Amino acid sequence: MPITSKQNEAGSYLNPADLVGAYAVIFLSKRTEIDAGYGQAADRMVELAAQQPGYIGVRSVREPGGLGVTISYWRSEADIKAWRQHLEHAATRETGRKQWYQYYELQVCKIERAYDFGLD
Amino acid sequence: MPITSKQNEAGSYLNPADLVGAYAVIFLSKRTEIDAGYGQAADRMVELAAQQPGYIGVRSVREPGGLGVTISYWRSEADIKAWRQHLEHAATRETGRKQWYQYYELQVCKIERAYDFGLD
Repeated sequence: MPITSKQNEAGSYLNPADLVGAYAVIFLSKRTEIDAGYGQAADRMVELAAQQPGYIGVRSVREPGGLGVTISYWRSEADIKAWRQHLEHAATRETGRKQWYQYYELQVCKIERAYDFGLD
Repeated sequence: MPITSKQNEAGSYLNPADLVGAYAVIFLSKRTEIDAGYGQAADRMVELAAQQPGYIGVRSVREPGGLGVTISYWRSEADIKAWRQHLEHAATRETGRKQWYQYYELQVCKIERAYDFGLD
């Protein structure tokens, strides 16, 4: 499947047919004003997640100074649990709670239907 | 449950215990440069959705000039289907495809687990 510029903007292409039956982890967050190491840690987590078994892809949007949403896609609940327990991820999560996030909301969801438009 | 300023920023409070078993509709989109009526239509859709049976809440984040993510939460798949078939919503969706969106990705998901942090 060719990667168009549109697909590059959102991340690598996610085939809807491939997402049905997979899992989405929705992470909505509000940052504190403490920047110390945040950008580097966030980049590292994206890089590390992509190396985990069952990782499919990620979408991330943040309003400057406002809310952010990151949605990661995984093959199974077991893959999500393994990533959750990854030592470096767990350590970064603790730092996040202490320093970087005012609050967050997280949902683990099973994808039942998926569509796209305009990504031909 | 008191509404704190944190909760106001993201939208009305979503109780994690209340979300388990409910549905999330993830809508990720990239806008065109055509503005004609978009803001008004988007506001109207948020207002109208909130009046539908089974509506729980919404979260929305957009990067200026970039990607946007809107996640709406619903009690059941039947509620989502009814909203999908709502005449005004269907008409606005058509306009969106013709004018406002370069592309979008949409997933309908069942929430299996939910947490939050910092929203006391």
